This record gives sequence, C-alpha cells and structure tokens, in this order.
Amino acid sequence: MAALDLLADPVALAAALVDVPSESHHEGELATLVEQALLAVPHLDVVRIGDTVVARTNLGRTERVLIGGHLDTVPAADNLPHHVADGRLYGLGACDMKSGVAVGLHLAATLSAPTRDVTYVFYACEEVASQFNGLQQVLDTAPDLLAADLAILMEPSDGGIEAGCQGTLRVRVTVRGARAHSARSWLGDNAVHGAGEILRRLADYVPRQPMVDGLHYREGLSAVRIEGGVAGNVIPDECVVTINYRFAPDRSINQALAHVREVLDGYDIEVDDAASGARPGLDRPAAASFVAAVGADPRPKYGWTDVARFSSLGVPALNFGPGDPSMAHTKGEYAPIEQIRSCALALREWLS
Amino acid sequence: MAALDLLADPVALAAALVDVPSESHHEGELATLVEQALLAVPHLDVVRIGDTVVARTNLGRTERVLIGGHLDTVPAADNLPHHVADGRLYGLGACDMKSGVAVGLHLAATLSAPTRDVTYVFYACEEVASQFNGLQQVLDTAPDLLAADLAILMEPSDGGIEAGCQGTLRVRVTVRGARAHSARSWLGDNAVHGAGEILRRLADYVPRQPMVDGLHYREGLSAVRIEGGVAGNVIPDECVVTINYRFAPDRSINQALAHVREVLDGYDIEVDDAASGARPGLDRPAAASFVAAVGADPRPKYGWTDVARFSSLGVPALNFGPGDPSMAHTKGEYAPIEQIRSCALALREWLS
Repeated sequence: MAALDLLADPVALAAALVDVPSESHHEGELATLVEQALLAVPHLDVVRIGDTVVARTNLGRTERVLIGGHLDTVPAADNLPHHVADGRLYGLGACDMKSGVAVGLHLAATLSAPTRDVTYVFYACEEVASQFNGLQQVLDTAPDLLAADLAILMEPSDGGIEAGCQGTLRVRVTVRGARAHSARSWLGDNAVHGAGEILRRLADYVPRQPMVDGLHYREGLSAVRIEGGVAGNVIPDECVVTINYRFAPDRSINQALAHVREVLDGYDIEVDDAASGARPGLDRPAAASFVAAVGADPRPKYGWTDVARFSSLGVPALNFGPGDPSMAHTKGEYAPIEQIRSCALALREWLS
Repeated sequence: MAALDLLADPVALAAALVDVPSESHHEGELATLVEQALLAVPHLDVVRIGDTVVARTNLGRTERVLIGGHLDTVPAADNLPHHVADGRLYGLGACDMKSGVAVGLHLAATLSAPTRDVTYVFYACEEVASQFNGLQQVLDTAPDLLAADLAILMEPSDGGIEAGCQGTLRVRVTVRGARAHSARSWLGDNAVHGAGEILRRLADYVPRQPMVDGLHYREGLSAVRIEGGVAGNVIPDECVVTINYRFAPDRSINQALAHVREVLDGYDIEVDDAASGARPGLDRPAAASFVAAVGADPRPKYGWTDVARFSSLGVPALNFGPGDPSMAHTKGEYAPIEQIRSCALALREWLS
C-alpha cells in the first residue's frame, strides 16, 4: 500500500483513505499508514495505542484543542473503491468519516504553528460496541493525552456544527420455545413465530421528538438484527432480536433502559451496549468561541458520537465535519468536495 | 474409532452408532465403519457410493425387499454420548434413526438365508435438502441397486407401520428495505420490522387436517429460520424468513406452492427445497403382505420420508421402525429398548 501524502489536497487524501479498507476491528493497515505519515511531520509528537494514533503539538499555548476522527467504517456494501462524480466523493466511509479524517490529517501536517496547541486523534472501533472504542483505550492507558479545552469531532455534520448527541442503548431480546420436527410442528413451540409480537411493537412504536436546551431531537427504536433457526426441518427453540434505542440527551441510560423494558414488557432483555448522550452544552466558553468563529447555527446531533465521551470527562465537545450525516452507513454515502475544503479552511483560519 | 460389532445385541449396536457423530454432510466416519463391518459378512455384496452403503443378498429368491435407514442426524443439542435409563436409549439420533439402522445392520449380518432377497441401504443426507440425499445419489449412478418389490424404511414409527408420508416444501421469503444509520432510523426502511407481518400470518395460520385413503393427516406451516441484520447501528435492508410447509399427500408440490403463495400474498417467494408426499398405498400386494404379517394397524406418516422417493419409482414403501416419531429432532430423543428388539424380531420372523 502506498504511503499517505498528507501535503496533498485534502480531497485526494480523503479518496486515498477510502481506498484502504478499515472495517471496525480491521483498522491496522490504515492506522500504520497514518502513524508513518505523522511520524514524518517534525512539529508533532506521535504515540500509537493499539490501532489509535495520537499526534500533538507542544508549543506551550494557553489553550489546547483536540481534533478527532475515527478510522473505522461499517462493513462494505459494494461501495469500494472511491469514485468522484458531480462534485462528490463517493465510497465506503467517504461520509462517515474519512473525509473528516483527511481534513484532520491535512491540518496536522500543514499547521506547524497553530494559535492553540492541537491534539489530533485518529482512532479505531467507533462503529462497534463502546468497549472496543479506541478513545476508551487511550483513556484507560494514557488519559492525559486526551486533555483539552475543547474537542472537535469531525463526524459528518454537513460542514456545520452539530451539538450534543443522542445516547444509544442496544439490547438483546431472546424468545424461547421448544424444538420439534417441523413435520409435527404442533409438538413444538416456534420461537421465531413468537418474535412476531416484538417486531409488531417495534413497527407500531412512535418515537419521541423532545426539545433539549433549545435543540430538537428525534429518537428511534429499531431492530438491527434478528436470528433464529436450527435446521431446515426443526421448529426453532430460540430467536434473538437485537434492538437499538437512540435516545435524546434528556434521558440517562437507566431511564432509556426502563423505557425499553416498558415497551418490551413480558420479554427477557439483556443489555449489549450502552452509551449516554450529551446535552448540547453550547454555553461552555470554549464551545461558544468556536461557534462564534465558524459563524454557523448549531443543530442537534442525532447519532451517538464520542462527543458524549468527552462531555462526561468535562471537555466541551461538538461535531464539525464534511458530509451529510443522513448519508452515513448507506451504500451510496458520499461527501461534497466543497465541504471537505470549507471545513479544512474554517479550522485553518480559527487556528492561525 | 472401534469397529462396529454387528453380531452384538441390536441395542448395544444402536448405542455404539449414536456415539459416532454423523450430522448431515459429515457421515464419512460412520459410513466407513458400516462399510467395513458389512464387508466382513460373507453372504452380502457391498457397494459404497459417496457416504451411502448398499449391501445385498443374491440368493435368487422370487421377491426382493429393501430395508433402508439414513445414517445422518440433525445437529447435536447437548445430547451426546448416549445413555440408557428407564428402558430407553437416549441420545442424538437414538430415535431418528440410529436404532432403526442398528436393526437393519443386525439383520444384515445375522440373516444369512432370508426367504426373500434383501437389499440393505444405509445412506447419507436425509435430514437436509433433497438434492443431497444419498438415495438420490444411488438412483443417479446405479438405480438397479434400489429395485425391490417392497421398501421398508426403518424410520421411527413407534414399532408400528406408518404408511404414506406428507410432502415438504421449503421456501425463502425475502423482505427488502433500505439501510440507514440507526440514529436516523426514519431515513431507512427496516426490513426486520417488515418481517413481523409474515410471522403474524404464520402464528395465526390454522393448518389443514385432511383424510387421505382413510388415514388422518395433519399439516404445518412453520418458520424454520430467520436472518436479518448488517451491523449494530444500521437499519437492516434485508430479512429472510425460511418457511417449511408440510403438506398431506392429497396435494402435489405445485398445489402446495400455490397455497403458500396465497398465504404469503404480497411477498417474494423462492423455493429452496421440495419433495412430494406419498399416498398410503396399502392396497399394493407387497405392502399388504407385510402389514398382514406384522399384524399392526397402519397409521399415517406425518414427516416426509424416503417412502415418497420409492413411491415415485413405483416401489411400494412404508415406515416401520423403533422410536416415537414425535421425539425425532428433539433434544431428549430416545428409542424404547423393547421396540428396538420387537422390530428386529418381527422382521426376522417375516424373512425366515
């Protein structure tokens, strides 16, 4: 694999990043390319922890800003390699979030004397269970590396600022039955048929749309996986539905879980993964200064992002990156080339 | 693995067979043990085709009877090795159908001069899609080996005679939707939620219970597998439900498929596997003679068995073997020891 050219146009860099596959848990190759490219930049101190790479300036500035992006993507959906059309960069991760990572890498290499010290973090496993998250790994081994006055996560936010984020709770609901030969189905108890009621409740569910600190959030309760079956001639004795609840930041994880238990009353629920949301927090000084500098109207963030992780550490955090967030995780995801450039420019100006 | 002792008590032999794992597509070891044991019997001509073993007497008798049993089992369910309790042999395949196979092997070794020539067939892949069935392999390569005046399949039938068999049709129903990030679920179309309606129709379905040639059949329409999901934070764009319809022998495969299409009107259906049933056919002379000799009241067969395959070749066929058929494919399957002995005795007397 060719080395990354961090001095290239950020759009070309984003395209090169898309073409290095890095599905969650398989970021090693990309992390190595990023690490090698950053090690060649004289004004940065580089540390690698697992498949997460941290690069810092140490200029003794009074403020420090953290610029972060995750290296991993969801599984491919016949959307590699990248292609460019109609002013858009298409391909797996183009939106979520290799274009943001490209902006971060480009700034890391080209901003040798920023007005604030900068910590760049390119990390693994954001798209999977929270326990694997590369930022968590850094927190567990070298938490000082993440200290900052403001964290800017370059998650897709349409080139604007998205504040706060929703929480996420993933549960497994297991329906049990009894096996039998399918030729004598009346002797068994079909667990897959039993799961129909769960799917009905999910299909009928009307999500909340609460206002939190002046921003409008929109929740969702969705089956993300269903599995059941033993063999082609056996009545299944187990069916597992995995359900993801995305909840507004006015609810805690415990409140979210209580709500899911209420909706799925009568079923056994096991928590698979949970991460709390973050209130918008735009009243915090560091966040307010960045918002004023960029001059954008902040919007609410629907997806969970690591903003919440920083928020819980007391570091004000927001999302600011190229790409329409509603394109994330779709087969046809893309980032508008103009947004890749405008995000790079806005950050460059704020830090110069 | 120790060689099989065909001269042992059929119950001990059945226990030994249970302890050789032989899930469908993995019958090689057991087939080799069976082949080696039969090759040592001087009055048999032995042929192996794939993992199917055929052993024949060639005494020039005017009639030939085929005694068959499949070597494969469904997947294990924590039910190995065998154990004996309360006069029952427990363990994977004890009922379906290693006890029947043990009776066949025991007769093959000990009946050196039967009154009818006998073709013993021990075959692979009965529990999976019809295309893999070992009998079909024999039909495709050496069909003469299966010629007979009557076929007795030693499928579990509670030591009595079960006549005819139901047909089986397996279809895959695919529900399609659109992917989206689960944090913005309203932008996607959840295929798993969409499958809820299919499960509801299956749960509400009332199966037919028709009379065919004087025997009472009982149908079933069951989901045997469901699968959907991309990743823990993605709205699934596909959900596949595999459905098994077991239909009485008054319906053809085409009629069965038309019925399933009617029940699942509005969904895309793809046929996975189909095998027609067999009418009881007890009016055929060879079948009538065996029924009279055994002196049992024939019952209908619910499960599909290879009786239908012989029936379509014009060979009258019935099921006669130890074990309660409703125990087949259950974790706690067993065969009553007394039935293993009584089946062996009835066949020995009829053939002596």
